[in-house]
Amino acid sequence: MSSKKKDYSLTTNDDRLTTASRDRLTTTSFVEAQFYTFAEPPDEMELESGERLGPITLAYETYGQLNQEKSNAILILHALTGDAHAAGFHKGDKAPGWWDNMIGPRKAFDTDKYFIICSNVIGGCKGSTGPSSINPKTDKSYGLEFPLVTIKDMVNAQVRLIDYLGIDKVLSVAGGSMGGMQVLQWVISYPERVRSAVPIATTAVHSPQQIAFNEVGRQAIMADPNWNDGNYYGRRLPVKGLSVARMVGHITYMSDESMNEKFGRRFRSEKQPFKFDASFEVEGYLQYRGDNFIKRFDPNSYLYVTKAIDYFDLSMDSGLQNLLKGIKTRFLIIAFKSDWLYPAYQSQEIARSCKRAGVEAIYCELNSTYGHDAFLVEIDEQTHLVTHFLNRVFEGV
Amino acid sequence: MSSKKKDYSLTTNDDRLTTASRDRLTTTSFVEAQFYTFAEPPDEMELESGERLGPITLAYETYGQLNQEKSNAILILHALTGDAHAAGFHKGDKAPGWWDNMIGPRKAFDTDKYFIICSNVIGGCKGSTGPSSINPKTDKSYGLEFPLVTIKDMVNAQVRLIDYLGIDKVLSVAGGSMGGMQVLQWVISYPERVRSAVPIATTAVHSPQQIAFNEVGRQAIMADPNWNDGNYYGRRLPVKGLSVARMVGHITYMSDESMNEKFGRRFRSEKQPFKFDASFEVEGYLQYRGDNFIKRFDPNSYLYVTKAIDYFDLSMDSGLQNLLKGIKTRFLIIAFKSDWLYPAYQSQEIARSCKRAGVEAIYCELNSTYGHDAFLVEIDEQTHLVTHFLNRVFEGV
Repeated sequence: MSSKKKDYSLTTNDDRLTTASRDRLTTTSFVEAQFYTFAEPPDEMELESGERLGPITLAYETYGQLNQEKSNAILILHALTGDAHAAGFHKGDKAPGWWDNMIGPRKAFDTDKYFIICSNVIGGCKGSTGPSSINPKTDKSYGLEFPLVTIKDMVNAQVRLIDYLGIDKVLSVAGGSMGGMQVLQWVISYPERVRSAVPIATTAVHSPQQIAFNEVGRQAIMADPNWNDGNYYGRRLPVKGLSVARMVGHITYMSDESMNEKFGRRFRSEKQPFKFDASFEVEGYLQYRGDNFIKRFDPNSYLYVTKAIDYFDLSMDSGLQNLLKGIKTRFLIIAFKSDWLYPAYQSQEIARSCKRAGVEAIYCELNSTYGHDAFLVEIDEQTHLVTHFLNRVFEGV
Repeated sequence: MSSKKKDYSLTTNDDRLTTASRDRLTTTSFVEAQFYTFAEPPDEMELESGERLGPITLAYETYGQLNQEKSNAILILHALTGDAHAAGFHKGDKAPGWWDNMIGPRKAFDTDKYFIICSNVIGGCKGSTGPSSINPKTDKSYGLEFPLVTIKDMVNAQVRLIDYLGIDKVLSVAGGSMGGMQVLQWVISYPERVRSAVPIATTAVHSPQQIAFNEVGRQAIMADPNWNDGNYYGRRLPVKGLSVARMVGHITYMSDESMNEKFGRRFRSEKQPFKFDASFEVEGYLQYRGDNFIKRFDPNSYLYVTKAIDYFDLSMDSGLQNLLKGIKTRFLIIAFKSDWLYPAYQSQEIARSCKRAGVEAIYCELNSTYGHDAFLVEIDEQTHLVTHFLNRVFEGV
């Protein structure tokens, strides 16, 4: 199920799955981030809160070529701590983009065939406008002056990018976790512009337990005196608070079973140390992942993006089923059995709403022990599902 | 299943369950904490780590009367943040002890019939010797000078209390969560002194996921600059760190379903506030519970007791099954379907080990939506099970 087995022997086999496995070993050529700043008026956006944000820049990357008919564009949407760098290598980097095993020549999102776009969300910290950006009114980083943004606001900003790229209708929108929420919002907000949708390991409404985990992360950051009400740019960073937030996150991304497989109860050194240092491997791993997170993520962005997730609720008012009525977008919905952060029942509810609304939807629940992380690591089965689904949508069958 | 329904009309019905429901409304008379300080040599204990701890005081409470044969004593063992005050009211208190709905006249642990003992664990902060106690060598609070203690050390201290009370063999040892770990350790360490055991919502070995949640709590406390390497007594307390630790704990004690039932996605005020203040009820609840925790718990004790839990592992070396061989203690093992912190499969493993070792064990998995908290709130079914089990053990049938 995972992509551990790599087969170098098959080079000319036409079977898509086998070649997908092989091609995962090759790299897309070097990629570079691009930037689009809302130029023509309106050069700002009205947000769901009623506040206005501008100017707005989106960092984005593209892979593959847009065809003449502009009918082969796929928008990939990232999760909480993701970014526009979904595939390929930046010059000098040792690791590729966050979904490189799914995006590339002959992979699930086949760059020989499709034009793939991925942009960093607003509120983020990877090139798009967010709380660490310079506020033109003060010439300092926004910090908490940045307005609260929602999943809908993120999508509304992405639409401007798609307009700028001259694309009227995308072949598909796809993403896992918070990416899946954007997928759903795209379909609801712009049904005429989306031929198909692939929400993975996600939900149409954030539950109190999911809110609670995010709130713990936020409280940990805000409890760090270096956070200083969000004014830490150019000063000491709230490293410890962000680290604790990240540790909580990591537990929820894994499963009881995957933690057992990865760490068991192994001690880091042979002798049981009887100290408060990390004695178990699992503790060392979490601390390492937590401590390193500050190098790549802005604590204020963590606050803003988790809050956007918590506000996400397509069940309000008339409910998802009614929002979907009359929509022609075709769905492939994927969930994972061991995912307890976004449990399969939430994906089943999306599928049920589609069916009731008369929207075409395929629902697949995959066996995996990886928990929520499965959408990043269970490649073979996802490749199989996505490849065939996109083929059918692209060919119009 | 819960004890929400209270029936005042039934006063003379002999049915145990119905009267148990009724008696929950009456109170045990006022109770007081008692203290036992290891007096006769050795006035200190060798701990599992090899270090020595002394002098040692245990805070304890008793309910009911020890019979002449001293055959009706039951030892109740508390969870992470519990204490010796398991039942009845302290003078002036509005709330009774933490398991008052299970302990009292005609309740599950029937004080008309049994002599109930509950003591605070060593390492704790409710009257027994722990990191906030005065270190006789320095005349200051121990802080991190306090040695690491284990579940086995806690049990070894309790044995001294039972000796002091003149009891050779207890009728039962019972407790949930960390209390259940002490139950298991009692049976393994002192099989001749325990006629029966009631481990509830617990495990024989702490899993990496369970360790990980505890480690997040510890990291949150140690990230608070007021923690000051454990030297905060008489100074500013690490309130925020402890609060975050408690919030994480609370999420794991509830279930996805019980959070949905209790909070849903309700906002605290009518208008969606678009601020980082707690906007959802679930956030307000967690913050309230977190902020108040400092009033009743010592942050260093949180570090020590969680570490004791993490080190708990009866699966080492020869395994629980072999440790149980030849033991005559009778088991009643209770688990709850929605408990994801100590999932039912861990209780099933205890039951399986008993069966394989030829130890008499009844295993009951109760339907409940309360998650791990169920052992504190699902009273009717537990009362039914415990009452009949203890009856049979006491009567020797």
